[in-house]
Amino acid sequence: MATAAADRTAMRRAITLAARGLGATSPNPVVGCVLTDASGRIVGEGFHQRAGGPHAEVHALRDAGDRARGATAFVTLEPCNHTGRTGPCAQALLDAGVARVVYAVADPNPQATGGADTLRAAGIQVEQGLLEAEAAEGNAAWLTSVHRGRPYVLWKYAATLDGRIAAADGTSRWISCAESRADVHRLRAEADAVVVGSGTMRADDPHLAVRGVDGAVQPLRVVLDTDARAVGPGARVLDDAAPTLVAVAEDARTDLADVVRVPRADGGLDVRALLAELYARGVRSVLLEGGPTLAGAFVAAGAVDKVVGYLAPVLLGAGPAALGDAGISTLSDALRLDVTETVRIGSDLRITAVPTVTPAATKER
Amino acid sequence: MATAAADRTAMRRAITLAARGLGATSPNPVVGCVLTDASGRIVGEGFHQRAGGPHAEVHALRDAGDRARGATAFVTLEPCNHTGRTGPCAQALLDAGVARVVYAVADPNPQATGGADTLRAAGIQVEQGLLEAEAAEGNAAWLTSVHRGRPYVLWKYAATLDGRIAAADGTSRWISCAESRADVHRLRAEADAVVVGSGTMRADDPHLAVRGVDGAVQPLRVVLDTDARAVGPGARVLDDAAPTLVAVAEDARTDLADVVRVPRADGGLDVRALLAELYARGVRSVLLEGGPTLAGAFVAAGAVDKVVGYLAPVLLGAGPAALGDAGISTLSDALRLDVTETVRIGSDLRITAVPTVTPAATKER
Repeated sequence: MATAAADRTAMRRAITLAARGLGATSPNPVVGCVLTDASGRIVGEGFHQRAGGPHAEVHALRDAGDRARGATAFVTLEPCNHTGRTGPCAQALLDAGVARVVYAVADPNPQATGGADTLRAAGIQVEQGLLEAEAAEGNAAWLTSVHRGRPYVLWKYAATLDGRIAAADGTSRWISCAESRADVHRLRAEADAVVVGSGTMRADDPHLAVRGVDGAVQPLRVVLDTDARAVGPGARVLDDAAPTLVAVAEDARTDLADVVRVPRADGGLDVRALLAELYARGVRSVLLEGGPTLAGAFVAAGAVDKVVGYLAPVLLGAGPAALGDAGISTLSDALRLDVTETVRIGSDLRITAVPTVTPAATKER
Repeated sequence: MATAAADRTAMRRAITLAARGLGATSPNPVVGCVLTDASGRIVGEGFHQRAGGPHAEVHALRDAGDRARGATAFVTLEPCNHTGRTGPCAQALLDAGVARVVYAVADPNPQATGGADTLRAAGIQVEQGLLEAEAAEGNAAWLTSVHRGRPYVLWKYAATLDGRIAAADGTSRWISCAESRADVHRLRAEADAVVVGSGTMRADDPHLAVRGVDGAVQPLRVVLDTDARAVGPGARVLDDAAPTLVAVAEDARTDLADVVRVPRADGGLDVRALLAELYARGVRSVLLEGGPTLAGAFVAAGAVDKVVGYLAPVLLGAGPAALGDAGISTLSDALRLDVTETVRIGSDLRITAVPTVTPAATKER
């Protein structure tokens, strides 16, 4: 006999499955699906693995085979109703004879919405909202990108307790511990694009690809190189480990093949225009790994949705700060956050925070 | 029947009692004492409340009265053997007929040591080391001051996630939350002296006295005012809420009454000379509340024993950093710490860290 507790267990499993798609499904959301029989036993499960591939429901239905008939489907997101690169999932659930559909989060995408109505019209028992907050958190990047019409931006930095990202002489390897650095590769694997600026290019010649994460889809490496002078031949980001896009000003002269031209703004490139370009290319989540100048530009543009800081228990007393000019000159204009998690990671602390939602902040800053 | 578990319970109670003396006993340590009867029941307890007052053992013996005969005494520090302002505690325990003495930490003070030998010579059963680490932690300031021959220094700062203590225009009220600010009053109450520099004097005209802590002994307020120009008539630290000492350079001209003259060093005052002056005045623990310049001077002098940072989930991107020049120009010279505690306090994070003990760091930096 299925119970409320069994329902939650099934949905939690679907949320866990969904997370396995992070970084691989854009421009689609991550979705997990679990099918249970009348006794609450799981008879099929699946998740959306990559854009263009089958949706979670289809994977789960295939997994269940005949046992899908009369089953309950637990889906983290409302089943889609449209025929994109794959057929509509609502219809697939109907065809398989599923008796009941429980989904966590309504689909905010106008193209895909309506799946629940289709199912109800066919006589299926449909329920929405089970573990909605958890499921939404698991899809935060995609949901934010739909609401804001631009990629979700996670700003990651690694600094000393006194907020420095390097010593006065520029040395910065390694401020953070090995465990923190490995954790950053997980963040890269979950992102569609990794973004740095020309300062980081010059200082570190970073590679930006994912290492050490099994099955990771490499993110698009994006370098903001306003004057097309920081990314030279032989730069490590130009290797074939992952795709790379160099963003330059509209008037910059460059011989690079794969560039995107973006309007200038405030001494650099227009952050919102860049994000619009990335969005148009299917990027729904960005890991901002840039230095203080670029981070300041993103904060100034109101384009930081989450902050992950790796704080090393180190004091320097000199050297560049983690965040540069963001157009904030007085305390009342500061960007205020809520800490959502603090965890020890190796010898460091990882602090996760999101901008405080205030009535004034609900519209774009 | 007393058991090992009962012994630990009694000693833990003694450690808790000892902490109630923090900030009030210098130049003495904090000490707690619990007396138990043969069944392990507490028959008397006490702690050292203030310098010049009775020691913990005497309070506990008075509390127990006749029940002290045959009892076990649990003391956080080795009972003293010398006659200072009060009589020797070892003799008091003997006179009361205590049968067994368990103490956590040996007294490192050559004047006071030897109590255990006196007790043993009189036929008392004496044991050392129960909960030694916990008891030493509770007396960290005093023990450090004995070992180093200078006051223990706790550097406290409040900063944004990006390490700023104020915005670009100087506004800093309030970066940290009310709970953090109340917590700082607790730190002040536990310290013998609170130290700031001329920068903080000019920027904030701070009061530095303890508010809102019941029964707190006010710390000595110390201002480093090298050129005797920051502490003017009407400065809030000159009120009668707490004693105040202004440290000036040997050649500074000042009309202030209570000044101490300290040699100049590196554009300010010699930190070690100042600490020696404070030590000579009985100060065993210092709460360093100064701004980045003073904190940098203390770090450069190797005179920071503990760091407590209140990190507010706020981003500024500009403004002064928490720690100024400490003579560290490259990462390999950074001051490395171990995080000992991380706790959410209101909306802030409080991070506590102590310098990493390395073979090279065991001698004074």
